Amino acid sequence: MNEKIKIVYIGAGSAAWALKIVRDLCVTDELKSSEIVFVDINEEKLTEIMRLAKRYNEVIGGKLKITGTASMKDALKDADFIINSVLAGAGHILQEKVRKVTEEMGYYRGIESREFNMISDYATMYSAVDQYNYIKNLTINIHDISPDAWLLSVSNPMFELQTLINRDKENKIKSVSYCDGTLHLNQIIKNFNLDGHNINVAGINHNIWITRSNQNELEFYEKLNNWIDKDSEKHWKNNSFYNTFDNEIDIRIISENVQFSRAAIDMYKSYGLFPVGDTVRSGTWKYHYNLQTKKKWYGPYGGFDSEIGWGRYLAALDMISQYMSNLYNVDKGTLLSIIPPEPGDDPVIPFIEGILLDRKIKAFFDVKNIFHGDTNVKYLPEYAAVEIPVNVDKNGIHPEKVLGLNDRVNKDVLVPRWVNLEMAISAYETGDKSVLLDALYRDPRTRSNEQAESTLEKVLSIPENVTSRNLYR
Amino acid sequence: MNEKIKIVYIGAGSAAWALKIVRDLCVTDELKSSEIVFVDINEEKLTEIMRLAKRYNEVIGGKLKITGTASMKDALKDADFIINSVLAGAGHILQEKVRKVTEEMGYYRGIESREFNMISDYATMYSAVDQYNYIKNLTINIHDISPDAWLLSVSNPMFELQTLINRDKENKIKSVSYCDGTLHLNQIIKNFNLDGHNINVAGINHNIWITRSNQNELEFYEKLNNWIDKDSEKHWKNNSFYNTFDNEIDIRIISENVQFSRAAIDMYKSYGLFPVGDTVRSGTWKYHYNLQTKKKWYGPYGGFDSEIGWGRYLAALDMISQYMSNLYNVDKGTLLSIIPPEPGDDPVIPFIEGILLDRKIKAFFDVKNIFHGDTNVKYLPEYAAVEIPVNVDKNGIHPEKVLGLNDRVNKDVLVPRWVNLEMAISAYETGDKSVLLDALYRDPRTRSNEQAESTLEKVLSIPENVTSRNLYR
Repeated sequence: MNEKIKIVYIGAGSAAWALKIVRDLCVTDELKSSEIVFVDINEEKLTEIMRLAKRYNEVIGGKLKITGTASMKDALKDADFIINSVLAGAGHILQEKVRKVTEEMGYYRGIESREFNMISDYATMYSAVDQYNYIKNLTINIHDISPDAWLLSVSNPMFELQTLINRDKENKIKSVSYCDGTLHLNQIIKNFNLDGHNINVAGINHNIWITRSNQNELEFYEKLNNWIDKDSEKHWKNNSFYNTFDNEIDIRIISENVQFSRAAIDMYKSYGLFPVGDTVRSGTWKYHYNLQTKKKWYGPYGGFDSEIGWGRYLAALDMISQYMSNLYNVDKGTLLSIIPPEPGDDPVIPFIEGILLDRKIKAFFDVKNIFHGDTNVKYLPEYAAVEIPVNVDKNGIHPEKVLGLNDRVNKDVLVPRWVNLEMAISAYETGDKSVLLDALYRDPRTRSNEQAESTLEKVLSIPENVTSRNLYR
Repeated sequence: MNEKIKIVYIGAGSAAWALKIVRDLCVTDELKSSEIVFVDINEEKLTEIMRLAKRYNEVIGGKLKITGTASMKDALKDADFIINSVLAGAGHILQEKVRKVTEEMGYYRGIESREFNMISDYATMYSAVDQYNYIKNLTINIHDISPDAWLLSVSNPMFELQTLINRDKENKIKSVSYCDGTLHLNQIIKNFNLDGHNINVAGINHNIWITRSNQNELEFYEKLNNWIDKDSEKHWKNNSFYNTFDNEIDIRIISENVQFSRAAIDMYKSYGLFPVGDTVRSGTWKYHYNLQTKKKWYGPYGGFDSEIGWGRYLAALDMISQYMSNLYNVDKGTLLSIIPPEPGDDPVIPFIEGILLDRKIKAFFDVKNIFHGDTNVKYLPEYAAVEIPVNVDKNGIHPEKVLGLNDRVNKDVLVPRWVNLEMAISAYETGDKSVLLDALYRDPRTRSNEQAESTLEKVLSIPENVTSRNLYR
């Protein structure tokens, strides 16, 4: 194989995750001599991730070639793989401002929190123009500069971004998205002592469900029913992860315990399939009307996306960011105990191995909704990005046939979420403000035309929302 | 042709409309010797419609054979055409009780009023079981007793009923539905002095739109834009129909003036196509949050479905019912001036002529969503009942290819309305109360889990809602 594999990693914002990818590269024999180019327009972040990556590479005696640039176009030349993790524009700062302004207008948790999309930093409609512009620009550049490269994107809003890429008829590129929310399946497999080889999830990003397509999954549902009958109340009462919350603990714990919250079990009872990972954080307004409701369903902290949970998550993000800055200075032993030199769970490097080395890799990725020329997930169009099991080999991505999703999930969950995507995208593509308003008039928190109209004006007036303001004049 | 055509008319509740059908039969040379069998389990209503029909037949010297029975099965024997107008169970009485009980629980205009389905007697979810049971039973009986007969149904909820028929794989029958809301197109053609031959509507029942598929329709949109610019404000200010409301006037006037209300123009501006007939009465909550909002969009009476408009409609229904009772006693001249012996607008008898006499008839009917083996209206399944232009001849119904619906209408209007149908039907088919609750949790008027749950219990406790209560134990 070609030893000079070039991997471009765009968006150094999430240094912790980037470092894990570096680690995974370093511990993979066939890839450890690759070149990895970090790209970020923020010089400070770029410098930090580069020196961290170099330190790690050095500590484990790796041979990675590590470079960095602010120029996406320069980086894309001769790229083989592009990992995209960008949150463009003012990112979290804008998202929190939108939340604050719109909460004052009567929209609890902000107008970007919507049915089946309650994740607090997953803006799709009123503050997402930077992100959509960015992904369009990236797609065009890959098409022009490195048309044979694979794009693996981990950015949100993943459903919208991957769908935009899928719909782009002029700039066809090889592309998938990957959300680490799918890793919660591992926790479920472990908790229930299941054979993990045949258990699947399927749906769309942040709306994925354990399917019942074979014996292993039936085994899961039998065990789940048993757990609900015998252990669930005890869990909700006594489990310390579920009932405590501390900045000191790994933030993942918050989300892991949402996986077995009352909300998750209620969704399972309503829809007949068990929701996985971030899926549990979403659902309808049933789980989200107010903090009291959120506490009822997600435990004493109201789940990841309540004002308590999210406040602490933001604090934890700051903490992690500071922590990562300090990581450069810790001694070798400490560094390796924090980032052990063994492959992690994310199927990013395995994906690259699958393509380059023809390893048969299975993963859950976001891809076009097509199986052998037909629609794969029913009732969604072929260009919609579905999060489903795929197999990877030298010929690329091969989606498995999606089996076992049921009508309740297909029609009553995935389709309404898809309608929101369509409104977001058609607003973006036409610049038609009336589409944004139409979505807001339909919002259950809207009580009058005026409330919706002045809320939108306020959101578009936020200084950091300048690209939205210019688009929706 | 066979002179002994047998037409079965089920549901004598709407005597005024039934009499128009009798008139249309009487004035059609090839059909005036047919047999018409009225079917109703209400003996009083059956007697009344029969004597009215006989009187009319006699007055114009007709040769109709008019009979009546309480037994659907007896009537169906050797039937050629079946016209269904039944509202089963406690009908309006139940619907008004549901409205009252649920308004007290915070659901303005009642829980059956939903997005894109605000028509006040179009229950689909919480009080529709009688109607669904009835249509299933009718379908089975036609299949068993008169499998070659055509069913033309005018009952609501038309979208759900015709879709149930379309989905029934065991009892395939020949069937269409027809809504006289499509007749508003005639008013539009007249108002704008258009050539009516090529102007179409398409969509689903109560969500139909003037399509732009050809020159005539462009002409319409040019004229409409002109009317909006020059005349609309004047119309809303001065038009007496729009601004007055009186039990004495034809109730159709209320609805005719909704056709050019501010709501209609706003929908046109939002979605890019002009809404026709009852479509204007629906839309999102934007037009319906409260009476004040309804007045803003529909004029001083808040439209057909406000507490004012609907109250007067119910009063008018009583008035018409009394009026019809008296009609038997008026003299010949008066009768003929009220029901002139010339063909009306409804394409019911023309439909029969089309089939029997191979007349090429065009009409707007609710049919399966299939054109030459493919989906006709995009994004809806093939079994969904779409309201579209069709051609009728001796070989049956031939849907035209639906052209000119746009993405906004397809995805953002028709799909959400279809999701509600799916929830209604899956609740009905499974008897799963959690589906009803799921729909109610999503309702913009719901503020808490408890509100939804106790509202549903109250609705199921209404004495007249006994079949729902039994199904959703």
